[in-house]
Amino acid sequence: MTQKPLILVANDDGISAPGLRALIKVLNEFGKVVVVAPDGPQSGMGHAITLNSALRCDKVHIDDGPQEEYSCSGTPVDCVKLAVNKILKRKPDLCISGINHGSNSSINVIYSGTMSAALEGAIEGIPSIGFSLLDYAHDADFSVSQEVVRKLVSHVLKEGLPEGSCLNVNIPKLPSKDIKGIRVCRQANANWIEEFDERKDPTGRTYYWLTGTFQNYDNGEDTDEWALANGYVSVVPVQYDVTAHHVIPLLKNWLL
Amino acid sequence: MTQKPLILVANDDGISAPGLRALIKVLNEFGKVVVVAPDGPQSGMGHAITLNSALRCDKVHIDDGPQEEYSCSGTPVDCVKLAVNKILKRKPDLCISGINHGSNSSINVIYSGTMSAALEGAIEGIPSIGFSLLDYAHDADFSVSQEVVRKLVSHVLKEGLPEGSCLNVNIPKLPSKDIKGIRVCRQANANWIEEFDERKDPTGRTYYWLTGTFQNYDNGEDTDEWALANGYVSVVPVQYDVTAHHVIPLLKNWLL
Repeated sequence: MTQKPLILVANDDGISAPGLRALIKVLNEFGKVVVVAPDGPQSGMGHAITLNSALRCDKVHIDDGPQEEYSCSGTPVDCVKLAVNKILKRKPDLCISGINHGSNSSINVIYSGTMSAALEGAIEGIPSIGFSLLDYAHDADFSVSQEVVRKLVSHVLKEGLPEGSCLNVNIPKLPSKDIKGIRVCRQANANWIEEFDERKDPTGRTYYWLTGTFQNYDNGEDTDEWALANGYVSVVPVQYDVTAHHVIPLLKNWLL
Repeated sequence: MTQKPLILVANDDGISAPGLRALIKVLNEFGKVVVVAPDGPQSGMGHAITLNSALRCDKVHIDDGPQEEYSCSGTPVDCVKLAVNKILKRKPDLCISGINHGSNSSINVIYSGTMSAALEGAIEGIPSIGFSLLDYAHDADFSVSQEVVRKLVSHVLKEGLPEGSCLNVNIPKLPSKDIKGIRVCRQANANWIEEFDERKDPTGRTYYWLTGTFQNYDNGEDTDEWALANGYVSVVPVQYDVTAHHVIPLLKNWLL
C-alpha cells in the first residue's frame, strides 16, 4: 500500500464517548482517520437504518488530533452508509467501530449498533472490526483495549479479511498482565430473559423499561463467553449471510 | 396439541397496515391470535431494541375478529419481547410477522424489522415465520400471500422448526395461477448501493434522505432472488448464530 491507509471510524455510544476517543488515538498511528458517529447514544439500535426521517451530518471538532470528524443524526449503520457515499473520496481501507462501553459477545452481536456498523462495513466490501470492552462505565480504562486494537488493526491492514465477514472483538475488564491472549471463537448460544420494569406516569398510565438477565446455554470452550470468562480477548468472525444452510435439506424434504 | 394454539403476531409496517390485517384474518382460523405491533411504521429498524426511552403498550380495537390486539410505541423486536414477558400468559406456539409491504429477500433480511421480529421469536425458542409480499403499495393484493400463509402455518404448527432458526418467506407479486410453487433457498449475495438525496432546508442547512439501488451479485439458482424472479415463493431458513464458522481456521492460523 503506497497511499496512507484511509480508516473509517464509527460507534454506537455517540461521538463524544470516551471509548471512541481512545480508539481514534490509536488509529491515528495507522493512517488518515475519518470519524462519522451518531450525535448521541444509539446502543441497541442493531442494523436499523433511517427511512422515515431525513438525516443531518455536520463536520465537528471534538478533540485535538489529525482526524476529521462528522456528527450524524442517524443510526450507526446510517453513519457508515453516509460516510461511504457522501463523505469519503474513496473506499476506505478499514472500517473500525467502537470501542464499545460494554460487551457485544454472543447474542449481543444481534442487538449491537457497534457491531452493525462493522457488519455494514463488511457488506460494503471493507475489512471491518468492532471492538467492545466488558465495562459499561463512562470512565472505563481503555488502555488494554488500545493494545488489542493496535495488534489486530496492524494484522488486518496487512492481511485483509475474507470477503463477507468482519470481526467481533471483545476485551475482558482485566489489567494487561492478567490477559491470557487472543482467542478465535464462535458465538455462544445465549439470550436475554427480558424483565420489563412496569411503572405508572403522573397521570396513572403504564409504561415499561426494558431490562433483562443474560442466559448462557453454551459451555463450549470454543465460545466467546468461555474465552472472556477465562481471561482471553475473544475474536469471532461474523457474517451477513444469515441462511441456516444446515436446515435447507430438512425443509426441502418437508415441503415435498 | 389439545390446547388451542396461541399465535403471537407482529410486523414493522404498524398495527393498522393492510398486510397485518390480511395476516390476522388467516391466523384466526388456526388458534388464539394475540397481536402486539408498533403504533406506527418501523420499516428498516432491523434488530433495534429501545434502551434509552420507556415503552407504552395499549390494548386496542382495530377491526372485528376474535384476536386480541396491543399497540406498542417500540420497535418490532420490543413488541415480541413485551408480548412474551408481559402480555401472554404462556409461551406462544407460533410467532408470525408480516405480511410486509415489500421484499425482505437476500440482504434485506438484515435491515428488516419484520424479519427481526421473527428472529426474536426464534431467539425466544418459538417457531417463527416472517412473510413479505413484493409489493410496496398500501392497497396491495394479499390474497395469494394468504394462501401461502395458510399452507406454511399449518405445516409449522404440525412439525415445528429446528431450534435456532426461523423462516423468511417472500411472495412474488403475481396472480395465483402464475405462482410456480414454493422453493427452499439460501439468501442471495446482494447489497444496496446507497444514494443520498441531498437537500437544503429553509435556513440553508443540508439534510439527506437515504435511498439506494439494489445490486444482486449472485446468479445461483438456489437463491431467493432467483426463485422470486422465476415465479416461486422463496423460503429461506434464517439463524441468529452469525459466526462465520468457515473463517475460524483461517483466523486461528493468522493469529499464531
